[in-house]
Amino acid sequence: MEHFTYHNPTRIIFGEGQIAALDAEIARDAIVLITSGGGSIKRNGVLEEVEAALGEREYFVFEGIEPNPTYETLMKAVALAREKKVDFLLAVGGGSVIDGTKFIAAALKFDGEPWDILTKQVQVRDAVPFGTVLTLPATGSEMNNGGVISHRAKGDKLPFRSEATYPRFSVLDPTTTFSLPPRQIANGVVDAFVHVVEQYLTYPAHAKVQDRFAEGLLLTLTEVGPGAMANPHDYDVRANVMWAATLALNGLIGAGVPQDWATHMLGHEITALHGLDHAQTLAIVLPAMLEVRREEKRYKLLQYAERVWNIRDGSEDDRITAAIDATREFFERMTVKTHLSDYQIDSSSVEPLLAKLMEHGMTALGEHGDITPDVSRRVYQLAV
Amino acid sequence: MEHFTYHNPTRIIFGEGQIAALDAEIARDAIVLITSGGGSIKRNGVLEEVEAALGEREYFVFEGIEPNPTYETLMKAVALAREKKVDFLLAVGGGSVIDGTKFIAAALKFDGEPWDILTKQVQVRDAVPFGTVLTLPATGSEMNNGGVISHRAKGDKLPFRSEATYPRFSVLDPTTTFSLPPRQIANGVVDAFVHVVEQYLTYPAHAKVQDRFAEGLLLTLTEVGPGAMANPHDYDVRANVMWAATLALNGLIGAGVPQDWATHMLGHEITALHGLDHAQTLAIVLPAMLEVRREEKRYKLLQYAERVWNIRDGSEDDRITAAIDATREFFERMTVKTHLSDYQIDSSSVEPLLAKLMEHGMTALGEHGDITPDVSRRVYQLAV
Repeated sequence: MEHFTYHNPTRIIFGEGQIAALDAEIARDAIVLITSGGGSIKRNGVLEEVEAALGEREYFVFEGIEPNPTYETLMKAVALAREKKVDFLLAVGGGSVIDGTKFIAAALKFDGEPWDILTKQVQVRDAVPFGTVLTLPATGSEMNNGGVISHRAKGDKLPFRSEATYPRFSVLDPTTTFSLPPRQIANGVVDAFVHVVEQYLTYPAHAKVQDRFAEGLLLTLTEVGPGAMANPHDYDVRANVMWAATLALNGLIGAGVPQDWATHMLGHEITALHGLDHAQTLAIVLPAMLEVRREEKRYKLLQYAERVWNIRDGSEDDRITAAIDATREFFERMTVKTHLSDYQIDSSSVEPLLAKLMEHGMTALGEHGDITPDVSRRVYQLAV
Repeated sequence: MEHFTYHNPTRIIFGEGQIAALDAEIARDAIVLITSGGGSIKRNGVLEEVEAALGEREYFVFEGIEPNPTYETLMKAVALAREKKVDFLLAVGGGSVIDGTKFIAAALKFDGEPWDILTKQVQVRDAVPFGTVLTLPATGSEMNNGGVISHRAKGDKLPFRSEATYPRFSVLDPTTTFSLPPRQIANGVVDAFVHVVEQYLTYPAHAKVQDRFAEGLLLTLTEVGPGAMANPHDYDVRANVMWAATLALNGLIGAGVPQDWATHMLGHEITALHGLDHAQTLAIVLPAMLEVRREEKRYKLLQYAERVWNIRDGSEDDRITAAIDATREFFERMTVKTHLSDYQIDSSSVEPLLAKLMEHGMTALGEHGDITPDVSRRVYQLAV
């Protein structure tokens, strides 16, 4: 097992009706900025529940944080928060709203041009405190300290993280997900699944607990994912999706093990250049990545085949192929297509994607740091 | 899944050589009281490492916190800490030292008679900050907010917990366990195993993630437990035992699920009256408890049989019997005996144990609250 530090101070408040708990979590005299996405929280009643819980507190609402939240939009929220002397942020939405809110929280206390947080890896040392009400299980942002922000003008999509940007609390009420469009819940399951894979499908590190936990999350997602599509009002199914997605990226399963994240890096460029959903890019890249990296990941692919997909027969290569196929079939069953061509993107896109990857310095990716531009090109080619 | 709040702010610093990290975790001007047990940390060099990390800080050492730490001993530490104006406690040892240190931390800030914390369930609202250096994987105390304290004069052993008594940090260096006597590592594995069982072997609650995590910990402990006895210097084995024991009782696997804890309650009385090790009492009570409760726990016993012990053949009753037998055999393989008679305690002890249980108000135990005195009597009788 590798050395690690694990620390996650976010308080999770889980269950139907728990939005009312906001009242106990936010200071009586706080001036609150509610941040949100496209308006679904007005239609499904979540905003109303939040407003009721805030009671007499002064609050403002900033609407319109988009999927793949942009610097341009978020800086408008920063300006509004400054104008209104906001001292607490409350993200109500999915991973994009929460990621964006982390950036707003950091930018409000940042001395200088906030975009530097992403491009120059300037350390964020302080942030306005914030909480979240999660309405879309997917990214795990509700219980970690990272975010991914896009710059519309530059066509960039870059990550940041800081000890100062853990949510103080996150309310997880599975009923808030009942009205999600099928595409969003499908994306969420795929996103969480790939988060686990990035921290698990590497090379053995004698980390038995982390392996078992990762496998437990993958098994849970494969078991409840299809049901979450078929029966959107099944509370227990949605509860399991929600808790699995949170634990997929809260630092726990990744503590003390090698991590990959090459699939995410290659996927980010597809979103930046072609506008695909984040999860769609992961479903496209992962099967191709596993195929290209089958030798480097051999031992863990065999373990994955056996423990997650119950594949025990055939040669080692057969079992690995079957596990990659099972992964692709699971994504397709979740209605998320797994080839670039399914999204009308052909092989002419490979070199532009690779150029963007190089521009972002992604020349030595993966758990061994040996995914060179040539390897990335093969993955993109295979993903067409 | 049941509603839950999960919050665990303890920072875990894991790996060989990490005791040096104390220097970054404790304030430069802190006045530190190191609390410890019987002196093993002097013999194995851990105290020396701790002292080196503390550098120029002023510190004192309180030695002699016993297994099943007593009020009488801990109040002496409280007096010393008051006299020396200590403002940070550093527990260096196993669960007893850490449990005891939580009580010292709470008692130092408690207005009134500290024993009331245990008997009158007075809420602890403040505590002196403390960290831990774990040397014995077992109780999980290094990453939770609870403790169990005994009163020698009264023959009582009672639990307490508080939001104020989470360790600020815990250093987990697996090499500190290399010199443990076999009996202590065996006890630790059994203790951690039963902690998981108390939160898992109840009734189904549609909590798939929690079930998988619990099973992952049980599988890990069964896989590495015997190796931890046979090869005490195998770093990876000890690392897996250590991390599994911490996660067995840090609140995570118990969030959102019913919990039992009757085995612990019945076990505590055996320690209080007969002085057995905590883990010995669990190894005695659990198999008997599962046998007596096989109907109430039927569904989860079948799941446990299949997923932890790979028992898939035979009738339901056969599989349950086989799983209980496998549990007992695992404890015996860990050299922890599983009958009261193995410790020269006969059936004449049943009524005195039951009387103590009643005296402590334990008349409706278990996940259903339906373990009456008569049921407890049957468990004790079967455990002889």
